[in-house]
Amino acid sequence: MKKLRLEDVAAKAGVSKTTVSRVINRRGSLSQKTIDKVEAAMSELNYHPNVIAQQLHTQQTKLIGILVPSVANPFFGELTVYLEHALFLAGYKVLIADALNNPEKEQRYLRQLMGHQVDGLIIATHNSDIEEYQHANLPIVAIDRYLRPDIPVVSSDNYAGGQLAVEALYQRGCRHIVHTYSTNPSNWHDNKRERAYQDTMASYGLTPMTCTSSFNDSPQEKLAIFSKLLEEHPEIDGIFASNDLDAARLLSVARRLGRRVPDDLQIIGYDGAQATQELVPDLATIVQPIEKMATYAVETLEKRIKGTFTPSTTVLPVTLKAGCTLKELND
Amino acid sequence: MKKLRLEDVAAKAGVSKTTVSRVINRRGSLSQKTIDKVEAAMSELNYHPNVIAQQLHTQQTKLIGILVPSVANPFFGELTVYLEHALFLAGYKVLIADALNNPEKEQRYLRQLMGHQVDGLIIATHNSDIEEYQHANLPIVAIDRYLRPDIPVVSSDNYAGGQLAVEALYQRGCRHIVHTYSTNPSNWHDNKRERAYQDTMASYGLTPMTCTSSFNDSPQEKLAIFSKLLEEHPEIDGIFASNDLDAARLLSVARRLGRRVPDDLQIIGYDGAQATQELVPDLATIVQPIEKMATYAVETLEKRIKGTFTPSTTVLPVTLKAGCTLKELND
Repeated sequence: MKKLRLEDVAAKAGVSKTTVSRVINRRGSLSQKTIDKVEAAMSELNYHPNVIAQQLHTQQTKLIGILVPSVANPFFGELTVYLEHALFLAGYKVLIADALNNPEKEQRYLRQLMGHQVDGLIIATHNSDIEEYQHANLPIVAIDRYLRPDIPVVSSDNYAGGQLAVEALYQRGCRHIVHTYSTNPSNWHDNKRERAYQDTMASYGLTPMTCTSSFNDSPQEKLAIFSKLLEEHPEIDGIFASNDLDAARLLSVARRLGRRVPDDLQIIGYDGAQATQELVPDLATIVQPIEKMATYAVETLEKRIKGTFTPSTTVLPVTLKAGCTLKELND
Repeated sequence: MKKLRLEDVAAKAGVSKTTVSRVINRRGSLSQKTIDKVEAAMSELNYHPNVIAQQLHTQQTKLIGILVPSVANPFFGELTVYLEHALFLAGYKVLIADALNNPEKEQRYLRQLMGHQVDGLIIATHNSDIEEYQHANLPIVAIDRYLRPDIPVVSSDNYAGGQLAVEALYQRGCRHIVHTYSTNPSNWHDNKRERAYQDTMASYGLTPMTCTSSFNDSPQEKLAIFSKLLEEHPEIDGIFASNDLDAARLLSVARRLGRRVPDDLQIIGYDGAQATQELVPDLATIVQPIEKMATYAVETLEKRIKGTFTPSTTVLPVTLKAGCTLKELND
């Protein structure tokens, strides 16, 4: 499959290579007749102008790199769809990388992305201590991650989300509320959710209790941790899980152990991705404004690319989605 | 943020631009001392060689475009992760596009991808009647979609999957088995699943019954269709849903209507994405070998790019994952 060249179009249209190039780039004076002739030839040959050559000229690639932990996770899948769509509307194409919680892959990928001369990066991975971020000299926006003082962050309100979750459980009668979350040294947002949990529990005079697992634990290991938690602590009557995958696992474990949800045990998750809400419609959760996070991230990145002013942090409000894993609230 | 140029490296290393270029492309005779000097300068300046300029030279971009309906769907999210990872290991970067069941977006995107001179395309979208596919003169592999006689297809065994699903329900006592699926004129795989359903029902002497919805129905519309189905047909004792999202919706509708699953009603879905299995661990499903589909698609595309022989169709086996939505099988 030989790639078509400018020469082929020129021959077909009966004009010079320079004329074809001028038509593609709309440079110099061109008669409509010439434009029509060249475009007809391009269309007939199914020739697409070489954007790469244009890039060398403009020093812009119109490519944006997006790094996420994994688009197979419904939250990051949905975030990527909205980012990609907003960037598409702004004239950009997206290079996607799933870091898979593997710092080495992330590092290699970052080096290569910079080699590909992307116009900017959107970073939503967990490994913020990668050295490349400290030296990168191109526009970057981080989603929910602190990378460097001069890299703007777009996130949802993790502190308010943690507060909302604990309040919802407390108002429905829970007094033994556990918070489950995944640990990661640079996992900025969970710290805020956890801090909100601690503060809100203290404000109610309740004793906090946390159960941690690691991002790298397998689904089986997570299930074992959660079974042990519920078996060893029959007094637990409320769970605030830091993400919906863990909340769904806890719901499944609770049902298997014969705990009645929501009568004896209430559960609230975090994230509220569309696919998760469809797959587990019963689950109460704190819904992050995923589409808004994506559009603000793209807006901020575009401003960075243009060199105009941006906020260093943009925090967007979250909402509570009540579900059958919470009791109905009696007013 | 000014982009660094070859000149800057040359000045720093105290050599000519040509020498820097020769070090980057490893061309001509170079002393180790010169290589070290130039690489030290590049590293110190945090300069990344301009891959775009190299691309013009080699006529390869090392970019592959992937078109999927939406990475927010757990099946396509997982497929994309595996495709991206296999391509990464093969030295390619991925341009991702979510067509969102919008043929116009898909068409515009395709035109632009061709303009970006990708080395190849992997297509997993539903809109196979887009004209661009008929004229595209670059290596393409389709996943589970028929596009054109000379475009190879990698898919899982949809006919065997349909058969496995109906057999599993029949062996567990179901005699009124409905098949739910989404309609789309070019939706190749579902036709095979549906054909297998029809054939297997006929082989058991059972009357087939299908319930169709559209890809573009909202979650609410789907729930309404499924509620109506179960309310109007209390005799239904088995459901074969063509995808796990619909199966999860049917499970939720059945529970709300007080149908006991699996005692009175058994359900089996299709796809078996990891995130879905984690979110709805109870659901029985036909598991597609998503990782294998991705690696075979990438292998086939690499062969196309090199111009070597490939099968026109590669079909990979599926497996049954029994779950609590099916009764235990008594031998």
